[in-house]
Amino acid sequence: MKQHNISAILKHIWKHDQISRIELVESTGLTSGTLTNLTHELIEAKVIREYQSVSGTGTAGRKRVLLAFDPHYYRIIGLDIGRSSYELVLTDLTGKIIKSMSGNTKAALGPEGFMGMIGTNLEELKKEVIAAGHKILGLGVGVPGPIDYASGSLIAPPNFERWDGYPLQQVLESRTGIPSLIEDDARTSALAESWYGLGRNGMNLVFVTMGIGIGGGVISGGEIVRGANGLYGQVGHMTIEPNGIRCECGNRGCWETVGSIPGILRRWGGSDIGELMHAVRDGKADARQCMDETLQYLEMALVNIFNMYDPEMIVLGGRLYPYLNPYLTEIQERMRSRIYAFAKDRVLLQPSTFGPSQSAMGATAIVLDALISRPVEILS
Amino acid sequence: MKQHNISAILKHIWKHDQISRIELVESTGLTSGTLTNLTHELIEAKVIREYQSVSGTGTAGRKRVLLAFDPHYYRIIGLDIGRSSYELVLTDLTGKIIKSMSGNTKAALGPEGFMGMIGTNLEELKKEVIAAGHKILGLGVGVPGPIDYASGSLIAPPNFERWDGYPLQQVLESRTGIPSLIEDDARTSALAESWYGLGRNGMNLVFVTMGIGIGGGVISGGEIVRGANGLYGQVGHMTIEPNGIRCECGNRGCWETVGSIPGILRRWGGSDIGELMHAVRDGKADARQCMDETLQYLEMALVNIFNMYDPEMIVLGGRLYPYLNPYLTEIQERMRSRIYAFAKDRVLLQPSTFGPSQSAMGATAIVLDALISRPVEILS
Repeated sequence: MKQHNISAILKHIWKHDQISRIELVESTGLTSGTLTNLTHELIEAKVIREYQSVSGTGTAGRKRVLLAFDPHYYRIIGLDIGRSSYELVLTDLTGKIIKSMSGNTKAALGPEGFMGMIGTNLEELKKEVIAAGHKILGLGVGVPGPIDYASGSLIAPPNFERWDGYPLQQVLESRTGIPSLIEDDARTSALAESWYGLGRNGMNLVFVTMGIGIGGGVISGGEIVRGANGLYGQVGHMTIEPNGIRCECGNRGCWETVGSIPGILRRWGGSDIGELMHAVRDGKADARQCMDETLQYLEMALVNIFNMYDPEMIVLGGRLYPYLNPYLTEIQERMRSRIYAFAKDRVLLQPSTFGPSQSAMGATAIVLDALISRPVEILS
Repeated sequence: MKQHNISAILKHIWKHDQISRIELVESTGLTSGTLTNLTHELIEAKVIREYQSVSGTGTAGRKRVLLAFDPHYYRIIGLDIGRSSYELVLTDLTGKIIKSMSGNTKAALGPEGFMGMIGTNLEELKKEVIAAGHKILGLGVGVPGPIDYASGSLIAPPNFERWDGYPLQQVLESRTGIPSLIEDDARTSALAESWYGLGRNGMNLVFVTMGIGIGGGVISGGEIVRGANGLYGQVGHMTIEPNGIRCECGNRGCWETVGSIPGILRRWGGSDIGELMHAVRDGKADARQCMDETLQYLEMALVNIFNMYDPEMIVLGGRLYPYLNPYLTEIQERMRSRIYAFAKDRVLLQPSTFGPSQSAMGATAIVLDALISRPVEILS
C-alpha cells in the first residue's frame, strides 16, 4: 500500500516535472496528511527535493513550494553492450548525463574479455561517484535479446554466439556490488523514449532498432511489454521474404536477414555500409537497387508493425538509421498509402531522440522505472 | 473506489467459480465488514447468489457458504454479424446458452435490410425474457472490424462495403432499448476464450479467425488490446506476399488476400471451398498445390504472430478453420521448427472452444466483461 502510494506520487512528479503538494493531493487522491508524510520521507531519502517558485514580480509575487526529482544525490549507470560497440553513461535522477564513455565491444574476446575491461571501468566509476558524495542507485544494462529474465542471462542472441547463456546480471553484481538489471536493447531504447523522450505522456509506441540485428520494443499504456517468453516485439524476425534464407533464430526470410546491416551488405555483395552509401550517392546502379529494395522491405515491415501493434508512433533508431534518415518522409508517405484510409494521417514515424546513446539512456531508464514502480523495494 | 472493490470481488468469484467469504477476504485484501456489505448488495442485485456446500458425510459433514454468479435473473444477448451468416445467443450470467438462432446475413440487403429482420428477432426475444421474469443486462455485438468505438459504427470493413459507417450501436439501442456494445469479431472471439474457454486463467492469447476475412484478437494479462486506432491485432493485414495483389485495406499482399476463403479460391480458380477440399482428398494436383501454399502461408503468418506477440497460446477459429483442423499438429510442428529453439516447445496451437458460435459467445462476453470491470455503472 505504501509502495503503491509512493509510486503514484513519483509518477505524478515525473509527469509534471515539478508540482505542488496541493496539486499532488488532487491528482493522487491521497489525504494531505498522508501526502505530507510520504513526500517528507522522499525528501529525506534525497529522491525528491522542494524549492520555492515565485510567479509574478515584486511584492505581488506569489510564492509556491514545488516538488521535483532531486538531481544532487543519486546516480544511475546505464550500459549498452552492442555487438560492435558499447556505451556507458552516468546520469542523475532527472535523466541528465553527467559522464559518458564508449568503445569497441571486441566481440571476438567474448563476454569474459569484455567483462574484464568494463568491470574495471565500472569499479573506477563507482569510486568516483562515492568520492564525490553521491550514491549509485543501480546499473541498467541493454544487450541484444532474447533474455532469460529469471537468471539475468542472454539466450541465443543471433550474431552474438559467445554470449549465449552468459549470466551477465550475476557477474556484474558480484564484480561491482551494484544492483543490476538487464534488458533487451530494443526495449531499453523504447524505455528511453517513454521516460525521457517522445513518449513522456504515456504514448503507445514501438521502437525499432536497426543495426547488426533488428529489434523492437513496444510500450503500451506507458509499460514495456515482454510477452510469455520475453519474445514480444521481435519485429526483426517476421518473415518478409517467403523464399528467403535461414535466419539464426530458426525462421526463414526474416526482415533481419535482408534489412539489417549484414543483410543489406550480403544483398549488395560488399562489406562496408558507408561504402554502399557512397555508391548510392554516386548513382551506381547495383547500389541504388540494393537501397530501393532496403526501403521496400522497410516499408513492408513498418506497415506490418502498424497493422499489428497500432501504435501512436513508430520510432526508428540504431546504427543503420542515420543512413536511412534522408528517406524518412518518403517512407512515411509510402506507409500511409498502404494502410486503412481512415488511419493513414495518424501514422507517425520519428527518429530516436538520443541517437547512438539511445540504448544506454534506456538502460538508465530501467533503473528509474524500477524506482518509480517499486520505490520501497529499490530504496531499501 | 466502490466500483473498484466490487470489481475485485466479482473477478475473484468468476476465477474460482465459487468461493467462500473468508477466501474472498484473503484474496481481495478487503476488510470482512466491507466484503459482507458489498456481497450483500450483489446478492440483492441478483448478480451473485450464496448456497450451502457440504463436504464430508453425515454428522462429520462440514458446511460452508459459497458465493457464485447467479444464473437465475440476468440474461445477456450476444449477436455475431458475419459477412455471410449471423448468430444470436441468449445466455445466463455464467455463460450457459439458453437459446440460440442463426441465419443468413443476406449481405446484399445491406445493414438496413438486415436490421429490419434482426430487430424483430431481438424485440421478440426481449419480450420472452421479460415474460419469464428475467432482465436483459445488455446486448453485445461482434462485427467485422475496424470499428469506431466513439460512434459505435463500422469503418471500411473489407468485403462488407455497405456497412461502412453504419451506426450499428445507436440503431440497435434505439430499436431495442437494450444497452449495446459493439466489437470487432476477432476480439469477441478472443474474449470468448478469455472468459469462458481456454484463457480462463488470465493467459496471454491470440485468437486468429479465418473466414471471408482474417482477423486477430489479442488478450494480454486478461485484457483485450485495441491500440491507438482500434487496429491492434489486424494480423490478416500483414504483408506475406511481397509482390502480392492489392488488398481492400490499402496494403498489398496481405495474408487475407491469399489465406482467407476468397483468397484461397482465387488462387485455386474455383468458387466453393468444399469443392476444393474434395479435390484435395481426390488427389487433384492443382488442389493439392493450392492447399500446400495455404499451409505455407498459414505457417509463415503464425510464426510472425508468435515472434511479434509471444503469446502462451494461439487459438484458431472461423469458417475456414474446420477445413484446416486435420493439419493442426503438422502446422504446429512446422512452426516449432521455425522459432527460437529455447521457446519452441512452448508454442501451443489450439482450435477454438465454441466453433461457429465463437464470436456470438464472445459478444455476450463483452457485456460480462463490462459488468465485472464497471459493475456500479452497468448495474445502475
